[in-house]
Amino acid sequence: MPEAHSPASSLETSAVQTRKSRSARHLRIAIFGFGTVGSSVARILVESKPRGLELTHVFNRGVARKRVDWAPASVVWSEDADAVLASDVDVVVELVGGLDPAGTWARRALEAGKSFVTANKKLIAYHGVELERLAAAKGGHLKYGAAVAGGIPVIPGLEQGMAGDRIERIEGILNGTCNFILSKMEEGAEYASMLAEAQAKGYAEADPTEDVGGFDARAKLAILMRLALRVQIDPEEIVPRPITTITPVDFSYARDLGCTIRQVSRAEQAEGRLAATVGPMLVALRSPLAWSQGMENMVIATGHYGGDVVFSGHGAGGHPTAVAVVSDLLALAHGSQRVEIPSSPARVGAEFEVPHYIRFLVRDRPGIVAAITTELAKEQINIRAIVQRAGFPADALPFVVTVEPCKTSALQRALTPIRTMDCMLVEPLDLQMLE
Amino acid sequence: MPEAHSPASSLETSAVQTRKSRSARHLRIAIFGFGTVGSSVARILVESKPRGLELTHVFNRGVARKRVDWAPASVVWSEDADAVLASDVDVVVELVGGLDPAGTWARRALEAGKSFVTANKKLIAYHGVELERLAAAKGGHLKYGAAVAGGIPVIPGLEQGMAGDRIERIEGILNGTCNFILSKMEEGAEYASMLAEAQAKGYAEADPTEDVGGFDARAKLAILMRLALRVQIDPEEIVPRPITTITPVDFSYARDLGCTIRQVSRAEQAEGRLAATVGPMLVALRSPLAWSQGMENMVIATGHYGGDVVFSGHGAGGHPTAVAVVSDLLALAHGSQRVEIPSSPARVGAEFEVPHYIRFLVRDRPGIVAAITTELAKEQINIRAIVQRAGFPADALPFVVTVEPCKTSALQRALTPIRTMDCMLVEPLDLQMLE
Repeated sequence: MPEAHSPASSLETSAVQTRKSRSARHLRIAIFGFGTVGSSVARILVESKPRGLELTHVFNRGVARKRVDWAPASVVWSEDADAVLASDVDVVVELVGGLDPAGTWARRALEAGKSFVTANKKLIAYHGVELERLAAAKGGHLKYGAAVAGGIPVIPGLEQGMAGDRIERIEGILNGTCNFILSKMEEGAEYASMLAEAQAKGYAEADPTEDVGGFDARAKLAILMRLALRVQIDPEEIVPRPITTITPVDFSYARDLGCTIRQVSRAEQAEGRLAATVGPMLVALRSPLAWSQGMENMVIATGHYGGDVVFSGHGAGGHPTAVAVVSDLLALAHGSQRVEIPSSPARVGAEFEVPHYIRFLVRDRPGIVAAITTELAKEQINIRAIVQRAGFPADALPFVVTVEPCKTSALQRALTPIRTMDCMLVEPLDLQMLE
Repeated sequence: MPEAHSPASSLETSAVQTRKSRSARHLRIAIFGFGTVGSSVARILVESKPRGLELTHVFNRGVARKRVDWAPASVVWSEDADAVLASDVDVVVELVGGLDPAGTWARRALEAGKSFVTANKKLIAYHGVELERLAAAKGGHLKYGAAVAGGIPVIPGLEQGMAGDRIERIEGILNGTCNFILSKMEEGAEYASMLAEAQAKGYAEADPTEDVGGFDARAKLAILMRLALRVQIDPEEIVPRPITTITPVDFSYARDLGCTIRQVSRAEQAEGRLAATVGPMLVALRSPLAWSQGMENMVIATGHYGGDVVFSGHGAGGHPTAVAVVSDLLALAHGSQRVEIPSSPARVGAEFEVPHYIRFLVRDRPGIVAAITTELAKEQINIRAIVQRAGFPADALPFVVTVEPCKTSALQRALTPIRTMDCMLVEPLDLQMLE
């Protein structure tokens, strides 16, 4: 590859340079998918002119309507993916999402020795290991800094800055849509109207299952687990819990307990046991996880040596995600090798040992608390508090039991007979409490 | 260099590996300075056995008393810096601090084509550009991930994950000692007793000027400015303000305003104007800067495209700092090139446009507020609020004026005649308010 001969640019002022790059390569770049993120990547490449990065191709179905007047005339606009993949581009930037055809493009690009940069969490969660092997075998690179927490540099942080630690736990707010809905519910809004607002703002899809069901966050957690906990897992082994079961009364009770509710993705490795879960949880108002408002994302990595490190910022959106993509492209142009973090295949369970919040909705009658606490006692689960606000009707009475740290499995065993008690109007809601 | 043939280790489980590293080199490492951080680096190298990293030499004055029984017998313990620099080590890890002799060691190591890894913020703030040029010329590398915010991967975050953005502002809590003292004062403690406690705990030196005067934070800010704002500055051009002028009454007034007080380092680049400052400031209780408690550090980088990214964690201490050092060593072993962030020499001013908190301590008499507000009005500075709590004696009355965003220089002009008013018992305290 020739050295870059770029014009003076805003990323590279015309004043005296510190020194010439030792390794900046000139890269010809194809963007696959010219939606919000794709056009934002193009915009940064055109405006900032980072040295060594040249946008040469854009692929999109029906590309004519995507064409923009601010892109260089030299850019080839195409709806023929095969032709672009067969061209002389050095890097394919995939921003379409989903397993197919993104996976096919990735394999073809890497097979041809090109590099592949993507924001596709699903592709990386399910096929990242295979694609990295392919990249290594063919001399290209796979980069996916935008796949988790968009503009927050958590992947380089883990790969570079925390590589020297042994990370024991990872917790995150990884889905902006859920965080938007839950942080609005914290202020008193209803789930359905906030989902509708998120859809109207383009934060949530018409079918919101990927987001609110926890599947999007699960894919991101699987990626973080590989980098942080160094395990290769099958994402399907994590069973996410939806946020749809959360009601306004849970936020009132949470507040009484000094907490709020967030969709949290967490995984930990302790004493050879690997556990991961995604779902709504109670988080202390004073904890970093409660700081995240709206579409913000957050990741907390707990190192054996370095303790907690918190990363937070805008997890999604065109510009923040595009910054992560362009940063990956710059790393390729500068020949930046990532620190190889070895990882091994592992099975993942769901066994944690934490306090829990359990909310019941019952038709009131004498003996309910006695019956519930008896079942908990059989599993050696200690009650921490029983909380019941005044003012609810006796025929639909919500109340809460919190318990001291106990194994997830023990709680589930205790809840089995409780679920079928005739006074229960809905399934009891059990949430992990993070302190 | 030969490929590493390391034994099975905890960082590299014995199970199936994803793939072999393409570039892991075997590095012989000398640690200069075997204090808290140095012994923690050695501990991680010995315990975790990261592939490719071998501790071969330790240099310390009076090294005999430093010797530990858990290090490999092959380690050479030396009090002859010249001999270690002349040896076949590949990397010198400098953890002594200060400009000399650390600078001499750095030049000699780099001159010989070795790499140099350091936690020395002062050396990097004053001589980083020169040392990077030398490293580039001789084929070695300079790494200083531990120099700012210890265990928080803010340097790789800026270099790798945010390289694609244009960062416009950087704010940070960069000195753990000041944060410890101020967050304790927030809870009601007195400055002097908290300084004594910080000294007793080993957080602060016998002469605390570097910390409480803002000089330590200034060096770190200068380093962040190079990476984030891409400017090479003379750190001496930033005039830090000490935290010693803060009194308990300032915390009460701050709380009335929904704020607390932290030592903040901040720099911004707007409309071709570069400004930087270090000192105590009012920060909104709801803002990330107020989250930092005790010895924690935090950095907030504001990107033109990606918005705010927050990094937080343990900024100092043996283990967190050591993690950053070992991560740098791993990056060297893996041939990781940093993304070259070009930077240019620049002059730095102190002109911000923000709201201010001004606390006066006066011998009360009629007309003081009128006189102060008249001077402010002459500079077109708008009053936001005048706050005076009941219960203070008239002969030593503290009260506060807050003003709408105004230029630092205008406020200083207005304060000049106010300072000499006969009712003033102490210098008025003006603090930036960050919202």
